[in-house]
Amino acid sequence: MVAVAILAAGRGTRMKSTLPKVLHQIGGRSLIERAILGSLEISPNRVLVIVGYQAEQVKTALLDPNRSLVSNSLPKLEFVEQTEQLGTGHAIQQVLPHLEGFQGDLLVLNGDVPLLRPQTLQRLIQTHKQHQHAATILTAQLSDPQGYGRVFCNGQNIVQQIIEDRDCSAAQKQNRRVNAGVYCFRWQDLANVLPQLQANNDQKEYYLTDAVNLLQPAMAVDIEDEQEILGVNDREQLATAYEILQRRIKSYWMSAGVTLIDPASVTIDDTVKIQPDVVIEPQTHLRGQTAIASGCRIGPGSLIENSQIGENVTAMYSVVSNSIVGAETQIGPYAHLRGQVEVGAACRIGNFVELKNTKLGAETKAAHLSYLGDATIGEQVNIGCGTITANYDGVKKHPTKIGDRSKTGADSVLVAPIAIGQDVNIAAGSTITEDVPDDCLVIARSRQVVKPGWRLKSKE
Amino acid sequence: MVAVAILAAGRGTRMKSTLPKVLHQIGGRSLIERAILGSLEISPNRVLVIVGYQAEQVKTALLDPNRSLVSNSLPKLEFVEQTEQLGTGHAIQQVLPHLEGFQGDLLVLNGDVPLLRPQTLQRLIQTHKQHQHAATILTAQLSDPQGYGRVFCNGQNIVQQIIEDRDCSAAQKQNRRVNAGVYCFRWQDLANVLPQLQANNDQKEYYLTDAVNLLQPAMAVDIEDEQEILGVNDREQLATAYEILQRRIKSYWMSAGVTLIDPASVTIDDTVKIQPDVVIEPQTHLRGQTAIASGCRIGPGSLIENSQIGENVTAMYSVVSNSIVGAETQIGPYAHLRGQVEVGAACRIGNFVELKNTKLGAETKAAHLSYLGDATIGEQVNIGCGTITANYDGVKKHPTKIGDRSKTGADSVLVAPIAIGQDVNIAAGSTITEDVPDDCLVIARSRQVVKPGWRLKSKE
Amino acid sequence: MVAVAILAAGRGTRMKSTLPKVLHQIGGRSLIERAILGSLEISPNRVLVIVGYQAEQVKTALLDPNRSLVSNSLPKLEFVEQTEQLGTGHAIQQVLPHLEGFQGDLLVLNGDVPLLRPQTLQRLIQTHKQHQHAATILTAQLSDPQGYGRVFCNGQNIVQQIIEDRDCSAAQKQNRRVNAGVYCFRWQDLANVLPQLQANNDQKEYYLTDAVNLLQPAMAVDIEDEQEILGVNDREQLATAYEILQRRIKSYWMSAGVTLIDPASVTIDDTVKIQPDVVIEPQTHLRGQTAIASGCRIGPGSLIENSQIGENVTAMYSVVSNSIVGAETQIGPYAHLRGQVEVGAACRIGNFVELKNTKLGAETKAAHLSYLGDATIGEQVNIGCGTITANYDGVKKHPTKIGDRSKTGADSVLVAPIAIGQDVNIAAGSTITEDVPDDCLVIARSRQVVKPGWRLKSKE
Repeated sequence: MVAVAILAAGRGTRMKSTLPKVLHQIGGRSLIERAILGSLEISPNRVLVIVGYQAEQVKTALLDPNRSLVSNSLPKLEFVEQTEQLGTGHAIQQVLPHLEGFQGDLLVLNGDVPLLRPQTLQRLIQTHKQHQHAATILTAQLSDPQGYGRVFCNGQNIVQQIIEDRDCSAAQKQNRRVNAGVYCFRWQDLANVLPQLQANNDQKEYYLTDAVNLLQPAMAVDIEDEQEILGVNDREQLATAYEILQRRIKSYWMSAGVTLIDPASVTIDDTVKIQPDVVIEPQTHLRGQTAIASGCRIGPGSLIENSQIGENVTAMYSVVSNSIVGAETQIGPYAHLRGQVEVGAACRIGNFVELKNTKLGAETKAAHLSYLGDATIGEQVNIGCGTITANYDGVKKHPTKIGDRSKTGADSVLVAPIAIGQDVNIAAGSTITEDVPDDCLVIARSRQVVKPGWRLKSKE
Repeated sequence: MVAVAILAAGRGTRMKSTLPKVLHQIGGRSLIERAILGSLEISPNRVLVIVGYQAEQVKTALLDPNRSLVSNSLPKLEFVEQTEQLGTGHAIQQVLPHLEGFQGDLLVLNGDVPLLRPQTLQRLIQTHKQHQHAATILTAQLSDPQGYGRVFCNGQNIVQQIIEDRDCSAAQKQNRRVNAGVYCFRWQDLANVLPQLQANNDQKEYYLTDAVNLLQPAMAVDIEDEQEILGVNDREQLATAYEILQRRIKSYWMSAGVTLIDPASVTIDDTVKIQPDVVIEPQTHLRGQTAIASGCRIGPGSLIENSQIGENVTAMYSVVSNSIVGAETQIGPYAHLRGQVEVGAACRIGNFVELKNTKLGAETKAAHLSYLGDATIGEQVNIGCGTITANYDGVKKHPTKIGDRSKTGADSVLVAPIAIGQDVNIAAGSTITEDVPDDCLVIARSRQVVKPGWRLKSKE
Repeated sequence: MVAVAILAAGRGTRMKSTLPKVLHQIGGRSLIERAILGSLEISPNRVLVIVGYQAEQVKTALLDPNRSLVSNSLPKLEFVEQTEQLGTGHAIQQVLPHLEGFQGDLLVLNGDVPLLRPQTLQRLIQTHKQHQHAATILTAQLSDPQGYGRVFCNGQNIVQQIIEDRDCSAAQKQNRRVNAGVYCFRWQDLANVLPQLQANNDQKEYYLTDAVNLLQPAMAVDIEDEQEILGVNDREQLATAYEILQRRIKSYWMSAGVTLIDPASVTIDDTVKIQPDVVIEPQTHLRGQTAIASGCRIGPGSLIENSQIGENVTAMYSVVSNSIVGAETQIGPYAHLRGQVEVGAACRIGNFVELKNTKLGAETKAAHLSYLGDATIGEQVNIGCGTITANYDGVKKHPTKIGDRSKTGADSVLVAPIAIGQDVNIAAGSTITEDVPDDCLVIARSRQVVKPGWRLKSKE
């Protein structure tokens, strides 16, 4: 049995934000979501989130049904209120009534440490179980240990003492082994010592490290990658955490056969899937539930979110949201698939074209300056430059249908609701208000009138 | 009394430019502007700019009334001509007639060193005044001192000798304390020794360091941040200087509560103001007199210049210049506010929309493919997709007015000058040439004509 | 006489690609193209490419007549098949029948090492010829030599032994001098020892280094810039190689007088030419046969490929391909010159404008929301906002002509083939289907009809 307690009660003053620190996001997920999701990978029996500063806001965010990530988690999140912020020891004291009689281990994590790998947690718990100590703590050997509590161990990694940075002597500060703030406790032993903690320090805080000092023998386990323990206290650290996360993700995809031409300029959410032999051009951002199939070239300057992109698609300088794009289709530059768009195979969506809630059949082209909204368009249709579906009458939206192989002339307006048959040809400059059967030419424009001598008149 | 002399006579051959080196810009301001503006922070009594190479061009640039930064400075800039470039000592010799009888200190700065902080200058002057030496010089301890003159001091920071890099012995080159080229002199003392300078060196130049050597005791003050003394001699250094400046600015805004998702890809002029809880997405550039209110999300891929952006505005992949945007408004992707635009609160400016010299009331939408120029548009107006204000008759621009709650149909053209009332509905595809009173439906289009059998004919 | 042999038979499993490793590209050229082009600079008499994995694909790519870079090379490429991949020694053994009787030196290069400078090869060959040893090998002193074969030399750079990393003792691993995998052999001597190579190692491979060991005395020449020997085995190394290449190119242009505001965000192909006093804004990409004249400001966010840009052009947030742009012209934001475009001097191509296979005379403006395709447009023409050339009738493309000083109204459609004379004024909202002579006003639109009381009706 393992319970997880996640410290998320702090305000995070240095963030200078109205938002509680743990709700700040990196890569589309809040810090606390990342901490929780990481802990779920070890299949805990209970997950307790200790909330305090703007507790309701944190709870609401975590239980938001639209963010299924965490709200559907098993086990269900339990919230523990820490009304005053009197230190990490005090926070865990609040857990006591919730875990009465719990037989097992308590893993203590921080809501503002988003980069811990599940493997690291697994290794910590494994070591803890194997050695049957009362406590096992995660430590790191830092090149710059300044500010961190130092952990003094004997040769067998048995903790002798943990001393806060501010209480260290000059000699003690030379110790580069630091407390990562991640602990695994035998719960019953911890429960026994928690009431004994004292706030005998400058900060008048109850330190969880004092519990470790009381629970000898405790063991220390060094982390392999010190970047995992980065805590986020300000916006620089938020940016650093995101950069580390991005390097991990991009490194993963490069090793999986994806070419990133200029990796530093690209961002990829960890929810994205990319097949081998995709090329990501500079300044491209892939977000949310996006999947990119083999052979695609995405970017430069594109944003793809929550979209499925078929094989060999190109998308340069374009924005694609909540859409499905068929294989071999070419998008952009300056195209916008605004959502609920399904584009068939081998289509072309050119510059200054917006699609919204629209379906395009295979081999259909909308090459320039068009808006297609609430439309169902067949195969091999040619959407002329400047074609607009007038889908909004000021009150509600109406649908447009265009049959296979039809062609809309330049600057056509289709006033919805409207259905255009197959093999229809709409003359350039026509505003079409009534349905058109198959195989027709349809015109709605005025004859041109020429008035000679304009220049002379205009000069007068 | 403090006078400032700024060396700005050099050509800067390594810039490979037709522009004098000191007029090259970083972040919207020339190197010399930055040097002058930094010096003004210490409230000098006189500011002398020593010009030589393309002196007129430098003067004109600094006195340009459109760049009020420097041209309105108090005290007024005085220009000193150095017709031949015979070294730093020679440059300051040219100051002699201008400062005849001046009682006080002379601060010597370089026009190509743009990153000196005012605090550094203040500390230099303070030390100078406190110790009452004849000269106080700024020094730096460099990890790589190559190329710099070395400063040899005794234990009390009293300068023993300054030796140019090329004149140093191998042992002397080990000294990592270098001359930053920034000096504070008791003017009368300096004025006495300036005529004694000799050009006894390979370069046949008069060195200002020789004056320091003549003025013992002189004192050295180490700079804290060695990046401040970076001089710009080529385009790599220009890029480096800009990068340092950018890191300072971005670090400042992050500490003030602004989230920069990918700081390295963003640039922010030092004239920009940003409220807390703004999120700046990657590849975004904020320039000039721009202010961004709390809650905004700007970018990715946006350029905002000289604009005021209200609270909770989003602006992705868009360009906004010289405009004011109301709170809660959504902009982009691919929108362009070209200048003299005022957008009300809760508006939506969508893709491929250009606004120029135009005012939009609250809750008005221009969602796609429109151009509004020289227009005054009410509240809750719906600008249909493809709406164009035809504001130019080939000779001059004319205004368009649209009243509250009106709706322009898709592909409407409004031939200016024109006034559309309130609650007007313009039918899709209409070209409107005459004013329309309130509460009307207006149509200007042809009936559609259908000709069956088009496909067969077209095959013939 | 010098022959070059380039090893290009490997699969490159770690690339996780269907493409052979050497065909992966950096900066528009494949790795093998870069290796070959580098070797051509030393004017070899023969160039042999040793192919194996997907040999046909590699050959086809190198002989592609559309990529004149390599396919027109002198001497003609000779391909040597290595059907099994049994090591570098085995690869060169395949050369034996091809170089029978060849008198001269053989330079051995790797198809996956794209960054070797020609000067380095020249220095290697020069040293080889001067010392008249049987073999001369390129070595590097690496800070991190892990994974590389170590080269042990005496004080005169005479190779004592080359030992593969995996066969090195702990002491031998301390040697930081590594084998760069680039060799110059006296061919007849090499030909004699090649048959003696043994595959006596874990890999069961024939090592070319064993030939060097057999050919004592061999000499080692250290490379100056260790980045040159980077081999590309996975996508991270592909990105690293590109980054190094980019740093070289950008450093070159900065030293030549080009301002790169944020160099890290910019990419420039090595085929691009830039004149001094050009400013490249962030996130800008210059590709292919592009030339940028003095005084231009390109970017931010622009892609220019295979285009000639005249003096003082600005191009922000735009894509320009295969086009010629006259001096003083302003482009963007969000303009697209799609190909075969010639823009005269002092033109303006504004937002949401696409040009394709079109010629614009001097001082012509297409400021907004227009598509001009297959058009020939005179000087001082004003292309009204929303002007579209309807150049496609569903079967083929037709041309449009517009004479000097003409003006198309907002939302004009020109149905091609069509010719508009000089000084013509097309009224806003007109669809023009027939030729218009000089000096005419032409209108093709409906009168507007106003129906009062619309709001009341619409409410019912």
